[in-house]
Amino acid sequence: MWQLYHFSLCPFSRKTRLALSEKGVAYELRREYPWDGSEEFYSRNPAGRTPVLHDPARDVTLIDSQAICEFFEETIDKTPLILGNAAQRAEIRRLVALFDQNFFADVTHPLMHEKMKKRLILRAAPDSGMLRNAMRLAHEHLEYIDWLVGNRRWLAGSQMSLADFAAAAQISVADYLGGIDWGGHDEAHGWYRVMKSRPSFRPLLTEKMEGLPPPRHYGDVNS
Amino acid sequence: MWQLYHFSLCPFSRKTRLALSEKGVAYELRREYPWDGSEEFYSRNPAGRTPVLHDPARDVTLIDSQAICEFFEETIDKTPLILGNAAQRAEIRRLVALFDQNFFADVTHPLMHEKMKKRLILRAAPDSGMLRNAMRLAHEHLEYIDWLVGNRRWLAGSQMSLADFAAAAQISVADYLGGIDWGGHDEAHGWYRVMKSRPSFRPLLTEKMEGLPPPRHYGDVNS
Ligand SMILES: N[C@@H](CCC(=O)N[C@@H](CS)C(=O)NCC(=O)O)C(=O)O
Ligand SMILES: N[C@@H](CCC(=O)N[C@@H](CS)C(=O)NCC(=O)O)C(=O)O
Repeated sequence: MWQLYHFSLCPFSRKTRLALSEKGVAYELRREYPWDGSEEFYSRNPAGRTPVLHDPARDVTLIDSQAICEFFEETIDKTPLILGNAAQRAEIRRLVALFDQNFFADVTHPLMHEKMKKRLILRAAPDSGMLRNAMRLAHEHLEYIDWLVGNRRWLAGSQMSLADFAAAAQISVADYLGGIDWGGHDEAHGWYRVMKSRPSFRPLLTEKMEGLPPPRHYGDVNS
Repeated sequence: MWQLYHFSLCPFSRKTRLALSEKGVAYELRREYPWDGSEEFYSRNPAGRTPVLHDPARDVTLIDSQAICEFFEETIDKTPLILGNAAQRAEIRRLVALFDQNFFADVTHPLMHEKMKKRLILRAAPDSGMLRNAMRLAHEHLEYIDWLVGNRRWLAGSQMSLADFAAAAQISVADYLGGIDWGGHDEAHGWYRVMKSRPSFRPLLTEKMEGLPPPRHYGDVNS
């Protein structure tokens, strides 16, 4: 069976878990902390980044959430997530990159640093200017999601795709860390509620990090 | 004909140009500056990032270098760049992500900021600590390339792939900015000389940015 070295609040681990689960791929979880990985984890990925997927039986190691998702897209027919014609697939990949890279750099990463790393590791107070800036940028990204779902059924077009899971993975981590305010974002909020209520999402919403409880609404699929 | 909105020292624009040229796709260049893009450019990509590829005839816009490369991999058979079986393709994508993300964040981006942006726009002196750090990290990445080409014919395996072009694109920008010291990296240097001598690379090596000349050896395929 596949073993997924992951970190609960790593949005790329979450994106990978959602995609594997949607495609019906069985896997076992191995918990790692990016700031203190196991020797085994570093031996599999010297770059020290989660997620890493390893199959001991076939001695295959897959690294990078997008490389992993493309691998299963190519090998498993169930629930295509990078679908449509070449231009539609390019649109899906554009949005995946936008959330994996820009949303992460603008919102998720600063929140992880200020609210998680400073609290659990550095034992320092968060920088309120940094937090304000991350939340301002979160609003801009949510506005773009409002626009997308106002014009399309799902983020990348008429069908649910990896773009929806990449975006929801980032948002779920930001939401856990108290960085998402849905005020004024009804369209995006409606879309996220649908994502949250998928069975693939359920396990993520019940996981808690010790010493860092999520806000009350976080796991509630109706709010 | 495709129009590529690019920036000469953007490594992702370079990776895209190399891939298009290897695959025999004709395109026209439109020069943009990431810090001062044209209205037309922002209307095509509100995120304001190069590269963007646009086909006016079919009104198709492709954004993100990896989405663009995957698009042509799917639509043009000539010179496959993401090739082999699914695991080999995952290895190519892992390395592309490593160079696009880690090499860029560790080396290319700090060099662009310290040596290009500060000189041309901010009119400030580069921070020597930042430069030293970028060059130290460049050595670590070159060491990894030494190791890869010591164990494989090309970076991702027995065949030339997009991993080679992604890496060479980053290195060529870092080299333009004086950030590459090949001392102690004979294997990586040999591999890069081969990349440099490909016809697809030639146009990149002759382009100069005004006010920012490259080091003497930069365009020389023998050094
Ligand atoms: N592009 C990678 C990004 C992975 C990544 O940045 N993971 C973070 C955790 S969210 C990490 O492991 N950071 C530790 C580090 O960079 O040293 C992917 O999609 O898998
Ligand atoms: N993942 C993107 C990265 C593109 C990117 O970061 N481009 C830089 C220039 S090297 C840019 O346009 N930066 C301006 C900005 O982010 O505002 C790709 O591969 O195309």
